[in-house]
Amino acid sequence: MSAKSPVIVDLKFIPEEVEAALRGAFPDREVINRADAVHHNRDLSGIDYAVVWKSAPDLFDRAPDLKVVFSGGAGVDHVLTLPGLPEVPLVRFVDQTLTTRMSEWVVMQCLMHLRQHRTYEAQAAKREWRDLTQPEAADITVGIMGMGVLGQDAARKLSAMGFKVIGWSRSKRDVAGIETFGGNELDSFLARSDFLVGLLPLTPDTRGIFNLRLFARLSRNGPFGAPVFINAGRGGSQVEADILKALDSGVLAGASLDVFEQEPLAQDSRFWTLPNVYVTPHVAASSDVKALFRHVEQQIARFEGGQALEHVVDKVAGY
Amino acid sequence: MSAKSPVIVDLKFIPEEVEAALRGAFPDREVINRADAVHHNRDLSGIDYAVVWKSAPDLFDRAPDLKVVFSGGAGVDHVLTLPGLPEVPLVRFVDQTLTTRMSEWVVMQCLMHLRQHRTYEAQAAKREWRDLTQPEAADITVGIMGMGVLGQDAARKLSAMGFKVIGWSRSKRDVAGIETFGGNELDSFLARSDFLVGLLPLTPDTRGIFNLRLFARLSRNGPFGAPVFINAGRGGSQVEADILKALDSGVLAGASLDVFEQEPLAQDSRFWTLPNVYVTPHVAASSDVKALFRHVEQQIARFEGGQALEHVVDKVAGY
Ligand SMILES: NC(=O)c1ccc[n+]([C@@H]2O[C@H](COP(=O)([O-])OP(=O)(O)OC[C@H]3O[C@@H](n4cnc5c(N)ncnc54)[C@H](OP(=O)(O)O)[C@@H]3O)[C@@H](O)[C@H]2O)c1
Ligand SMILES: NC(=O)c1ccc[n+]([C@@H]2O[C@H](COP(=O)([O-])OP(=O)(O)OC[C@H]3O[C@@H](n4cnc5c(N)ncnc54)[C@H](OP(=O)(O)O)[C@@H]3O)[C@@H](O)[C@H]2O)c1
Repeated sequence: MSAKSPVIVDLKFIPEEVEAALRGAFPDREVINRADAVHHNRDLSGIDYAVVWKSAPDLFDRAPDLKVVFSGGAGVDHVLTLPGLPEVPLVRFVDQTLTTRMSEWVVMQCLMHLRQHRTYEAQAAKREWRDLTQPEAADITVGIMGMGVLGQDAARKLSAMGFKVIGWSRSKRDVAGIETFGGNELDSFLARSDFLVGLLPLTPDTRGIFNLRLFARLSRNGPFGAPVFINAGRGGSQVEADILKALDSGVLAGASLDVFEQEPLAQDSRFWTLPNVYVTPHVAASSDVKALFRHVEQQIARFEGGQALEHVVDKVAGY
Repeated sequence: MSAKSPVIVDLKFIPEEVEAALRGAFPDREVINRADAVHHNRDLSGIDYAVVWKSAPDLFDRAPDLKVVFSGGAGVDHVLTLPGLPEVPLVRFVDQTLTTRMSEWVVMQCLMHLRQHRTYEAQAAKREWRDLTQPEAADITVGIMGMGVLGQDAARKLSAMGFKVIGWSRSKRDVAGIETFGGNELDSFLARSDFLVGLLPLTPDTRGIFNLRLFARLSRNGPFGAPVFINAGRGGSQVEADILKALDSGVLAGASLDVFEQEPLAQDSRFWTLPNVYVTPHVAASSDVKALFRHVEQQIARFEGGQALEHVVDKVAGY
């Protein structure tokens, strides 16, 4: 058997985190970290694997023999649009630490809206001791759009916290204890949702899906009288001008946004300072780089052992 | 059989919530709501039951024949010190909606500290897009002091969210999936706790237990280098001057406080505005008044049916 193929690493993550994670990773093969100047002019032909996230535009020209491409993140919208992406399997990143972090973020946002955190913070700033009428989790139905790996874990945890949870996805999913809706049942799903959580991939079908028409179809029967929009999928799925209109006009009572049409979010965006809006800088579930390399090692072992790769992206569906 | 004994209601809650909850409650007996002027001079002798929370000081003088006293809240420190409390069973309020609300608050506080919410809020105020190195829930051990009804539910839910959870109580409790410590194992418990959650009743033994000496024994091995203190038990269990010292000197990295030595918290308290401190006005788990009356009805039915009362307070232990 010939020597094992090297792995190309081209990740625009925090460089020190990548370097630290590479120590001890891929013990049986060479790693070509493109962030390392020494590799800039390296001949990449004949190499089987690349792990990419916002990789250099000439990567696929320079590495024409890739057999598998690995996405550094769970979403692949950035990868699918890379110039020259070869016609080989694209494997996305699925991992328990990423899933768990996303659910932390989603549950925290739902609890902060439920428990009127911003109002209590505003009262505290005025040194005001006053209790508000307080619904409990069971009074709120959280509707999750996107019942994949992340949506299902968030659903289970929201439900453990006492929220009523319903889920919507292209194909109707069977999730223990959660009422689910299929692609063509969006209306009845929205009419029931007091808090709407977006955990959709960005695809041609989901681009701009979170718009004023959709917000207007959400439940207004919840204890806060108007719905809350929470998005940690992709910014391209939301129409930010519509979110602002909806917040201004009371169509939405609040929002939590981790993703934006343009990232970083513009300095002059109104989202930074709106009263009932929480903004985080695309950190809901950052990839743990060590876990990413473990996952790539496992998939390469499967591939070289003749087993099917897992988490292969459907390039037509776009996720 | 003689007519059923009336119930005296003397609750310093939001009056409208009490009135609303009384509609339809106790259908088979009279309710004497002491907030109602019409009952001010009413003869209360011969009456069996009273439901109290910060009741009038002359209540027990005026109602000398009570057979059971019901506390309007889960804690009974306020009731045990009422003048003239008769030597009859004191039943405290235990209820799923109260338990669930407390866990919402505890999980939300733990998540806000884990996810560096205040830092992200400060960055947002400066319109700064910057990601922080982010530990995950499994990197944090939450130690819960008080593993009763509330502590056990919070433990289960924190654990479902991915936190490592350990518990401490007077008697060592057996809780599925949670490592627990008994009264005499406080040191080893504290040394393991990165976040400390107080869910203790206020008794002579727990008064002032959260002091500088205790904070100094907490783990400093967690990802934030210093521990966080979260209290929703009773303010009398904490030494607030010590919390401030601990925060100022870095013995504590942050705090979440729902209860205080004096309530309302003084206008000039530094807690209102400290950077990594969350203050809420004793609202972690407000009693749902409807649920309270359902619970009292159930216990009266047991009592009159010859069954043992549940949730009877041990007046010697003080909870
Ligand atoms: N903010 C962050 O830090 C962060 C971190 C990681 C991931 N993400 C985002 O989260 C997304 C979801 O991740 P995941 O791992 O849960 O993905 P996944 O397992 O592929 O699940 C995607 C879900 O979305 C549904 N879906 C896709 N297109 C749809 C459409 N047109 N109509 C209705 N439902 C549709 C899918 O339906 P089916 O079940 O029918 O296939 C599936 O339920 C990623 O794509 C990424 O963009 C964000
Ligand atoms: N902030 C709010 O909104 C709010 C709302 C409701 C209740 N509370 C407070 O929460 C407290 C706890 O409620 P709960 O329903 O969970 O009470 P509980 O079921 O009686 O549990 C009390 C727990 O504390 C432990 N404990 C008591 N004294 C102790 C001591 N000296 N040393 C060690 N452990 C001790 C008990 O130990 P054992 O297991 O050995 O008995 C038990 O585990 C209430 O008393 C009340 O003050 C606050």
